[in-house]
Amino acid sequence: MLYRAAMSEAASAAATRATIGDSEFDRDTAATRRAPGVYDIDLSAGWTIINAVNGGYLLAVLGRALGDALPHPDPFTISAHYLTASRPGPAVVRTETVRTGRTLSTGQASLFQYDDEGNEVERIRVLASYGDLDTLPDDVRTSAKPPAIPPMDQCFGPEDGPAPVEGGSAIADRLMLKLDPATLGWALGKPSGRGEMRAWFGLADGRDADPLSMLLAVDALPPTAFELGLKGWVPTVELTAHVRCRPAPGPLRVSITTRNLAGGFLEEDAEVWDSAHRLVAQSRQLARVRLG
Amino acid sequence: MLYRAAMSEAASAAATRATIGDSEFDRDTAATRRAPGVYDIDLSAGWTIINAVNGGYLLAVLGRALGDALPHPDPFTISAHYLTASRPGPAVVRTETVRTGRTLSTGQASLFQYDDEGNEVERIRVLASYGDLDTLPDDVRTSAKPPAIPPMDQCFGPEDGPAPVEGGSAIADRLMLKLDPATLGWALGKPSGRGEMRAWFGLADGRDADPLSMLLAVDALPPTAFELGLKGWVPTVELTAHVRCRPAPGPLRVSITTRNLAGGFLEEDAEVWDSAHRLVAQSRQLARVRLG
Repeated sequence: MLYRAAMSEAASAAATRATIGDSEFDRDTAATRRAPGVYDIDLSAGWTIINAVNGGYLLAVLGRALGDALPHPDPFTISAHYLTASRPGPAVVRTETVRTGRTLSTGQASLFQYDDEGNEVERIRVLASYGDLDTLPDDVRTSAKPPAIPPMDQCFGPEDGPAPVEGGSAIADRLMLKLDPATLGWALGKPSGRGEMRAWFGLADGRDADPLSMLLAVDALPPTAFELGLKGWVPTVELTAHVRCRPAPGPLRVSITTRNLAGGFLEEDAEVWDSAHRLVAQSRQLARVRLG
Repeated sequence: MLYRAAMSEAASAAATRATIGDSEFDRDTAATRRAPGVYDIDLSAGWTIINAVNGGYLLAVLGRALGDALPHPDPFTISAHYLTASRPGPAVVRTETVRTGRTLSTGQASLFQYDDEGNEVERIRVLASYGDLDTLPDDVRTSAKPPAIPPMDQCFGPEDGPAPVEGGSAIADRLMLKLDPATLGWALGKPSGRGEMRAWFGLADGRDADPLSMLLAVDALPPTAFELGLKGWVPTVELTAHVRCRPAPGPLRVSITTRNLAGGFLEEDAEVWDSAHRLVAQSRQLARVRLG
């Protein structure tokens, strides 16, 4: 009886752990093809930070539509220009195939929502080249080193303290985010003055990482601006991500660096490392800051 | 008589030094508006490297057309996907205004050439957001440091040794390029094994740098792949450049780094520093390599 009870409990746990294809993230980034190149979207309210729909979540939505539209499955390099602020609710993604090749294809995609008169308003436009990560040779000569971040049990997430950022942040409930205490000074009123943010990253329901969830990961940490002593919103103007490898199962390490805060703008360079110590994704975004 | 002769000689020298707007680079990147959003181009054979038209030169051509088409003059962030190889000769750029705002506008542009039947073939597609560099506040908190590169007279250009790269490289005649000897091992048969390339950069006719010439500068050095011991072509798949500041007059320092050579691809991160020690531009490209 004990054995059967234990097995039943294990089976229940296994049945409830989310998987790639069956998870909050997959459901909330679903793109339903209505016609060739036209995808119906329902932007979830669950991936907002301070009431704004997270830019990485939006990039993943567009990435999913393009992965369906193009003959190659994985984003290799994807650039997004953020035009107007998205809102939870209905949206449509329109894709265009720009060029198809043997190993790479290029596509363009736009996400639209609707104004009060029902007219389409473009929120984001993306240009991307896709390939097949599973066909890449495994010759790896990466000279970069993984970030120095303490073990996960020595890092802290939103659930470990009072909510440091005012306003709704539903995304916090959907992520497993454990920040390096060396990049948490801002949450204690003592920003370090260094443009750095580092964290262990995963999805709260246990779903493993994949190329699309890495598009979320590069934009899901608190802004480096907080550690630079800046307050307020740091909207992304443009973000380019390179996906270099299918990530191994297990948590990711994300390390973000800003070195050029100037003239009302800053860049955030993100590196994503997987549990096999591969540099699986890199991104750079240009964002606006409010100075002074 | 001596005084008038000296003044006349000085006047002649001043008259021949190229300026922004009147230079080889400006003539060869000219975009002639034929109709709204349609620009006739003549791709010069003067900016080729190993017979391929340089990707930064092509980006500058597209950047010039977009600067004319959009209400803001300067590229702040520009992403290009390189689809098919361009050739010297006639081309057309077609632009689309995606969104115009008070301080930023976004546009898209494609460069086409013609196949044997006269059909348009897309070479490059670009997405870019433009602003006005002259309106940016001068609050500069850049933490990055200029590259450690020896004084120009201790660096070396193509003219200082035998041609290290086989094949035509007309671009060498149009650039003032002086490479850091620490990144020149490849030219002597002894690549360092480090993914680095650094140089002083200018235009051979003396024209000062500007935002468009910086789009050339980020892609005009020898590939880091040469220092990694790789031979052959390293074609750019995608390149994103951020222009952060109008460069001061005088030579630029360009520093390129590769840290993630893996799976048949590498990234090249370029930093451009001006004579006033400002980090004036940054870029990252994804390129394909032939391994083994």
